Amino acid sequence: MTSSESRGFRSGATVANLVANARGLQPGAVARLISLVESDSPLLREVAVALAPHAGQAQVVGITGSPGVGKSTTISALTRAIREQGRTVGVLSVDPSSPYTGGALLGDRIRMLEHATDKGVFVRSLASRGRLGGLSAAVPQALRVLDASGYDVVLIETVGAGQAELEIASLADTTLVILAPGAGDDVQAAKAGILEIADVFAVNKADREGSAAVLRDLSRVQGYKPIPDDAWAVPVVQTVAAAGGGIVELLAAADGHFAWLRSTGSLAVRRRRRATAEVEAIVLDRVRARFASLTAPTALYAVAEAVARGTTDPYSAADQLFPV
Amino acid sequence: MTSSESRGFRSGATVANLVANARGLQPGAVARLISLVESDSPLLREVAVALAPHAGQAQVVGITGSPGVGKSTTISALTRAIREQGRTVGVLSVDPSSPYTGGALLGDRIRMLEHATDKGVFVRSLASRGRLGGLSAAVPQALRVLDASGYDVVLIETVGAGQAELEIASLADTTLVILAPGAGDDVQAAKAGILEIADVFAVNKADREGSAAVLRDLSRVQGYKPIPDDAWAVPVVQTVAAAGGGIVELLAAADGHFAWLRSTGSLAVRRRRRATAEVEAIVLDRVRARFASLTAPTALYAVAEAVARGTTDPYSAADQLFPV
Repeated sequence: MTSSESRGFRSGATVANLVANARGLQPGAVARLISLVESDSPLLREVAVALAPHAGQAQVVGITGSPGVGKSTTISALTRAIREQGRTVGVLSVDPSSPYTGGALLGDRIRMLEHATDKGVFVRSLASRGRLGGLSAAVPQALRVLDASGYDVVLIETVGAGQAELEIASLADTTLVILAPGAGDDVQAAKAGILEIADVFAVNKADREGSAAVLRDLSRVQGYKPIPDDAWAVPVVQTVAAAGGGIVELLAAADGHFAWLRSTGSLAVRRRRRATAEVEAIVLDRVRARFASLTAPTALYAVAEAVARGTTDPYSAADQLFPV
Repeated sequence: MTSSESRGFRSGATVANLVANARGLQPGAVARLISLVESDSPLLREVAVALAPHAGQAQVVGITGSPGVGKSTTISALTRAIREQGRTVGVLSVDPSSPYTGGALLGDRIRMLEHATDKGVFVRSLASRGRLGGLSAAVPQALRVLDASGYDVVLIETVGAGQAELEIASLADTTLVILAPGAGDDVQAAKAGILEIADVFAVNKADREGSAAVLRDLSRVQGYKPIPDDAWAVPVVQTVAAAGGGIVELLAAADGHFAWLRSTGSLAVRRRRRATAEVEAIVLDRVRARFASLTAPTALYAVAEAVARGTTDPYSAADQLFPV
């Protein structure tokens, strides 16, 4: 254990205590567990084992949309509405834009402005990616910490950027896509991809001009796809999040989708999808880490040298290093 | 061999002929080889083996910059300048923005407008990513096709989006970063990351207001980093690409950097870096493909189920599926 990891709790009783405290929704313990899974600590394995039996209880809602649609405001309003029902909320903000900096995101504003003293709300921002692309294992593991800690609902938000949306959707039970008038030609730009991942649409800023056009575009594009009898008919909820308008309805739509998942057995499918995404992210991180360690004359170095010289081809090199 | 692969050339003499024709810069053969490496064809291995001895000759220049800085215009002007020197050029345009669509990119415009009948210029656009992020192996392999075909210079362009820049830089001998006034607060936005990858800066639209400010910002940020005696001092070239201004100087700066790489032995380091990125992309694609095949009750399915149920943790699952 390094000194930075030992800081804040004594070894010995450490991980078990930390998990117990996190399950009492002590924000310091939750934050420390997330830091442990983020930092690839040697305690990671112990943390993972301790969390496993407690995971899988939270209702996980992924929230995405282009910049300017009002994600931050909507999440803040949803958080308030969920709290008013007596349920607890964890919010995870994922920044897919840059591998360079972590960068505080939207979610932090919520923490600062409103729920700072409410133990029933926990907010954390994360950078999403490893050095060479793909969802960093830190994101699903941070979700796992919030889930296992016992927050009733976990909101994961990400900026609408193709790939990040898909990745977050793979972790969520319900994916909420927010559109708004004036935030670019959303429906056009989003194309097929966003329709496929959305379980619920929110058309925010419903009081603004152009809102009807967004609704029309959306229903036209949705109309192309017939809905089988046993499928979920993706609802569209109009909101004015800044004034709280439509938020109760939006929450009801998300809850309705979750109930549908439970009743049809689809929840098990989504949970398996999440588990797969978790394990995949860990494996991809491992592969990247192995390649990143190419600084000394290792086996990999020799293989890279051979590929660079043209004496072997990269597929044979891949076979050699990672047999199929 | 599937019917779509056999279309266009007879089996038997196939791959060897195709590579021979590509090395005669026959655009049809080059295009078909790129399609083969893009499509994960069963002929891929044979193609890789056939290309290996011919790779490593091209001078590879990565070109990046935010939308609106004039990448397309600069590449078009550079292509013209390189051709005027009698050298041949391959251009690879990589679109990192979306996993949904391939989408024709900037480079295609060049092909259409100018060099359509010039065998010394080949232009191709590629989508950059696999379904779950990271550089698709298709990008380095398409580069390999252009390199092995014998184009003297290969230009790889990508839109400046954090991660994609890093990935393209890992393939290039020289990375050219284009800035311009009025294209957002480029230098600020770019921060440390872009300074680290740039071997040459172009400040385009040098005739516009605001150009001096970009230069000043750039030299201020660059000024923070002292340059050791044996290091490359990143040059800044002012261009007005639309009128061809500064393009000869920009090309000279890129050539100068390549000469420096050769003379210092740094070229071998960069080529090893590229080889590593190539092999890594192949391995990551394989891992993703294996996870994507999770549709039947396989071993992976059972493990995902166990993780979803909480009877195992995701790190133990990763160990089981992909031992460290």
